[in-house]
Amino acid sequence: MSAVVPDGGTNVRRLSVASDRPVLAIDVGGTKISAGVVEPGGRFIAARRMVTPPELDAEQLWRTLEVLTGELLAEAGFDKPGALSGVGCGCGEPMDCVAGSVSPLGIPAWRDFPLLGRLGELFSGVPVRLRGDGICLTAGEHWRGAGRGTRNMLGVVVSNGIGGGLVLDGGLVSGQTGNAGHVGHVVVDPDGPECRCGGHGCLETIARGPALVAWAQGERPRYSLPQDEQWRPGQRDATARDLADDAGRGHAVAAAAMRRAGHALGVAIASVANLCELEVVAVGGGLAQAGPVLFGPLEEALRGHADISAPTGVRVVPASLGQDAGLIGAAAMILAADRYWPAR
Amino acid sequence: MSAVVPDGGTNVRRLSVASDRPVLAIDVGGTKISAGVVEPGGRFIAARRMVTPPELDAEQLWRTLEVLTGELLAEAGFDKPGALSGVGCGCGEPMDCVAGSVSPLGIPAWRDFPLLGRLGELFSGVPVRLRGDGICLTAGEHWRGAGRGTRNMLGVVVSNGIGGGLVLDGGLVSGQTGNAGHVGHVVVDPDGPECRCGGHGCLETIARGPALVAWAQGERPRYSLPQDEQWRPGQRDATARDLADDAGRGHAVAAAAMRRAGHALGVAIASVANLCELEVVAVGGGLAQAGPVLFGPLEEALRGHADISAPTGVRVVPASLGQDAGLIGAAAMILAADRYWPAR
Repeated sequence: MSAVVPDGGTNVRRLSVASDRPVLAIDVGGTKISAGVVEPGGRFIAARRMVTPPELDAEQLWRTLEVLTGELLAEAGFDKPGALSGVGCGCGEPMDCVAGSVSPLGIPAWRDFPLLGRLGELFSGVPVRLRGDGICLTAGEHWRGAGRGTRNMLGVVVSNGIGGGLVLDGGLVSGQTGNAGHVGHVVVDPDGPECRCGGHGCLETIARGPALVAWAQGERPRYSLPQDEQWRPGQRDATARDLADDAGRGHAVAAAAMRRAGHALGVAIASVANLCELEVVAVGGGLAQAGPVLFGPLEEALRGHADISAPTGVRVVPASLGQDAGLIGAAAMILAADRYWPAR
Repeated sequence: MSAVVPDGGTNVRRLSVASDRPVLAIDVGGTKISAGVVEPGGRFIAARRMVTPPELDAEQLWRTLEVLTGELLAEAGFDKPGALSGVGCGCGEPMDCVAGSVSPLGIPAWRDFPLLGRLGELFSGVPVRLRGDGICLTAGEHWRGAGRGTRNMLGVVVSNGIGGGLVLDGGLVSGQTGNAGHVGHVVVDPDGPECRCGGHGCLETIARGPALVAWAQGERPRYSLPQDEQWRPGQRDATARDLADDAGRGHAVAAAAMRRAGHALGVAIASVANLCELEVVAVGGGLAQAGPVLFGPLEEALRGHADISAPTGVRVVPASLGQDAGLIGAAAMILAADRYWPAR
């Protein structure tokens, strides 16, 4: 056990890493908000999860998070000062890690919301660390999940956006502003559509959930098939998960959309694997649960663009920690800071 | 000054980094072999350069290198045991950094040649370190060249192949086998031609020198231009440098070939910059001297695929150390090992 060096909202590297006190881990996403008390070995002592309330304003949502974590800590008996060794928080992107503010795609109420500062006020006296959900999934999967024991890993979150994180030479990479690993903006089609990042043909323009649904809806008129009754993407509020389900049931347009996404993912992953000599890629996020309709085309594209048969060939696997990956990664930024909290 | 820990041919991390003794730096390429004695601040005390003799067998070439370095050290007065703090060597790729053997594209005589072991025997008692020329250029440009003072940089060598290296969070990245930064195998055209790596549409298939020349020779019949008399790529032994010269003089096919290469480089660099949050990219190698006919299209493609106007936007610059970059980077693996000799 070591002294805890407060770094509040400053995100300064904490040199002491060992402690027998647990961490509060938080994961704020567009569909759910989770919090957990995590002991130094990475196991949950207590956890809570709730649906992200869609109708709240910025302050109401913050108050909801405050109540959720307060109740969790009281229930678990860690609500006294000094009971925690720190607080790690993951949040939907985009995010300004330097300012500590967040503007998650899935939470319109938070635009440049000063989440790191608020957490620093609420949990003063212990380190508070904030990173994107792609970074946290990567840290979690490397520390306790599919990438455990490897030294070079890419984590990918396929959801409304496509985020990620990079572990190289055994440690999480930070990059210029703490967002390195952003695989969603690797170019997979130089002549492709414009991306919200200002680029063209980024992986995200093809394989993020809403892009998949839009493509399928655009292709729909070209098909006339018996399965059309089951064609949920034709509905206005259809999601990429509906599309994946339909693809699994053999719907041609849905299957084509998943093939397109899987192919784009395979090309982007091959580029990163070739560049960084990756050992493993862990793919998580809602769409990763689509199974073979996504991973089949992904593997095929990967074989076409990377030498995966070599002894050093990359393996692509589904993230193994499920919905807990982000929380465990958030905890890792405190509990295994030597690997998951890069020096800035 | 510190004790020198011998790591001979084993490539083990050396923890002591400070020494007032110089380093022997070596750079073995297909066109030239260079060696220099470099003092701890990165300046040359003495240096020699020779054209790589094309007609020698593996042992004769090794003997040539042995004589070159022996004469250099004698001349500079560092031929006594203990006079050097170590030996850093860069060599053309591909390379097996784990086995310490090299098979440079431009040196057919060396196939799986055990260069690290030979150097370890010749310079026993001091650390000997070997990496690819793309890695060494990157280390050199980051330590003393165009990337100095930045923390996130890609080095690119555009030549007969396309190599590179990655500095992230202030240190050189190793990857699984010490070859990370291999930007030549980032995919820029998913439907593109097969690459010698087994993939398809890698940057290298389009922008490496021989690919450029082959493309221009294939396009040639479609043009009939006054400049045809000056059309050197039509000759059997034409090089990409000839092509660059012709492009500079306005030859349409040559200019189109350079545009194609610049565009591919821009797309690949954008992907890496987006992924890794790069600050700067230093482009070296023979083709980098082509100037605007290459860098113009490169910048244009980069603007189309990355937000370079952002405060964190990447800058692409020519490598600034010229022919010395590889030697200085080889020296950096010993003299600034904390940053340029990643823990394995």
